[in-house]
Amino acid sequence: MDPRIREHAEVVVNHSVGVEPGDDVVIDAHPVAEDLVTALHEVLADIGANPLVVQQRTGKRFRRAYLRNADADFDLPDHEMALFEAMDSYIAIRGDANVTEESDIGGEVQSAYSQARQPLTEERLGKTWCLTQFPAAANAQLAEMSTEAYENFVFDAVLKDWDAVREHQAQMKTLLDDADEVRIVSGETTDVRMSVAGNVTLNDYGEANLPGGEVFTAPVPDSVEGEVLFDKPVYQRGHEITGAHLAFEDGEVVEWSAEKNEDVLTELLTTDDAARRLGELGIGMNRDIDRFSYNMLFDEKMGDTVHLAVGRAYEATVGEGNEQNESAIHVDMIVDMSEDSRIELDGEVVQRDGTFVFEERGVE
Amino acid sequence: MDPRIREHAEVVVNHSVGVEPGDDVVIDAHPVAEDLVTALHEVLADIGANPLVVQQRTGKRFRRAYLRNADADFDLPDHEMALFEAMDSYIAIRGDANVTEESDIGGEVQSAYSQARQPLTEERLGKTWCLTQFPAAANAQLAEMSTEAYENFVFDAVLKDWDAVREHQAQMKTLLDDADEVRIVSGETTDVRMSVAGNVTLNDYGEANLPGGEVFTAPVPDSVEGEVLFDKPVYQRGHEITGAHLAFEDGEVVEWSAEKNEDVLTELLTTDDAARRLGELGIGMNRDIDRFSYNMLFDEKMGDTVHLAVGRAYEATVGEGNEQNESAIHVDMIVDMSEDSRIELDGEVVQRDGTFVFEERGVE
Repeated sequence: MDPRIREHAEVVVNHSVGVEPGDDVVIDAHPVAEDLVTALHEVLADIGANPLVVQQRTGKRFRRAYLRNADADFDLPDHEMALFEAMDSYIAIRGDANVTEESDIGGEVQSAYSQARQPLTEERLGKTWCLTQFPAAANAQLAEMSTEAYENFVFDAVLKDWDAVREHQAQMKTLLDDADEVRIVSGETTDVRMSVAGNVTLNDYGEANLPGGEVFTAPVPDSVEGEVLFDKPVYQRGHEITGAHLAFEDGEVVEWSAEKNEDVLTELLTTDDAARRLGELGIGMNRDIDRFSYNMLFDEKMGDTVHLAVGRAYEATVGEGNEQNESAIHVDMIVDMSEDSRIELDGEVVQRDGTFVFEERGVE
Repeated sequence: MDPRIREHAEVVVNHSVGVEPGDDVVIDAHPVAEDLVTALHEVLADIGANPLVVQQRTGKRFRRAYLRNADADFDLPDHEMALFEAMDSYIAIRGDANVTEESDIGGEVQSAYSQARQPLTEERLGKTWCLTQFPAAANAQLAEMSTEAYENFVFDAVLKDWDAVREHQAQMKTLLDDADEVRIVSGETTDVRMSVAGNVTLNDYGEANLPGGEVFTAPVPDSVEGEVLFDKPVYQRGHEITGAHLAFEDGEVVEWSAEKNEDVLTELLTTDDAARRLGELGIGMNRDIDRFSYNMLFDEKMGDTVHLAVGRAYEATVGEGNEQNESAIHVDMIVDMSEDSRIELDGEVVQRDGTFVFEERGVE
């Protein structure tokens, strides 16, 4: 086994999740990630924690078979809920045999399924959890990379000095925590303002997401005004949405379009009312992720990018007394900030063309 | 996909388990059985039941990694228990990448692990369950067959007229239910007597086991006297035990030996006190299973065989007021009854050289 897989497992268990002796852990993984799941069992045995392997969100072929044969009247499964209520922590491993496995499921049935299972999502997000990546061949293919190059890409992004990352990013967290209004401008196509007043900025240094490498908060739902053209493709439900454009008024998406797969974008935005409001503003700060790989777990952390998510806001980013956007979806979309771009906080530029005020590029 | 896989899934769901709309189903399967798990999702979606896929007993590589790194002080995992308590039914699919995956785990740690998890086993056996087989290459290899020949062997055994099987076997069930003492004689090496008075004979026509094809009951634990040489190998913990010989006094195994892997037999028999007493007497009646395949799910159903299990008795076979043997193990071992053999009930021969009194071989 590649020794980096064992190191990866150690980072997940010891840094990301912080598993304690006796903890009951659920590992959700596709069989392509078998080596990482095996290494996780070694590390969890050392600690004396109890793993159970499931294929739930990762069982895409099974879910496709199920959803193509089901009517749209879904129950909340008691046994999955009981499992999630009783577990201490949850490790989800991305890694597929075919990333487009779900491309021929109807959007309506997918939405109905997601909505019926939302209490499961809530329960899971209330536990300590980590979402990470195994460098499977299909994911390498999606990234247009050889499997070996993709392995190097994933392990470089995952096996980092996460304490150093935390310190670097803390500078941006402080700026955002102190700010009321955020304005994001990029070229002629993106100019959007939103309030983050009272909300909480989180510093992601490889805990719930591995790799980490962003700071993120929640916009005040009704405050978003302006328009955004997302430069990077969005990969959802087995489809690539490119050139997504959203226009906001009073916090709501009032117009939308896409160059490719606009119907998928429409399905997402019409899942529920909150699917047309923002749930997240994130600043990508991980410059070791130096290329787009059609995988939001990595793409949203890329240096010199900003991402906005429609749908669900993370509870921990919503300040006391502020409204939490609650939706069955959470879809991140990325704006490239490396050229002709700026982030302003309360009228002050804190990032221009990818360089933050607290750093000098080229001398890092 | 081989259309027999979909038929197999239909037999499991509709005949073996009898899944109802809304049922919460756990499917325990190794990735080699992916096609059958996919077909099960199609069938369960038709019914409106809720599947969750786990790798628990089937995750042998994971368990090996865990047990080789664990100390012998195991918890009962709350999350697995909560899942089992909440599920309505449980489908376990045999099928491995490597059937000897657990051959280098210490027997002591295996026993400690089994014992700590016994409440999980009890909970699972209290639900509607089905253990079936996917014809994976490794299992074909164990049976010393090509994969295609093994596929035919498995599907022929599974896709049967189970109503006809039930009627045929009911004749032997009636005889056993009416009997007090069973005597099994084979050659010079096996002559064992036991009481089954008050216990219940079950007719296995493909419900909890698929393939089915046996009738079975529980011996009264203290009543077993005599000795047995098991003609067929026993495959346990990745090892083949051959020529196992047990001598019983007052129901207890007082002497044992084996030609090969006697130490594995010793580990099994010393798991707990009840591991040295019988938990099952079974009569194999499925003549479509016409060869030994090193797989007890099939082997114990072979026509012209009898099997005895040391360890746990199935609760449903124990009559009211009779003692149930309770152990962390249940290990079946087979006696060939095709030649120089007879089964006597209360002194009357009911089977001689494989032919039952209620049938005439050759004219079936």
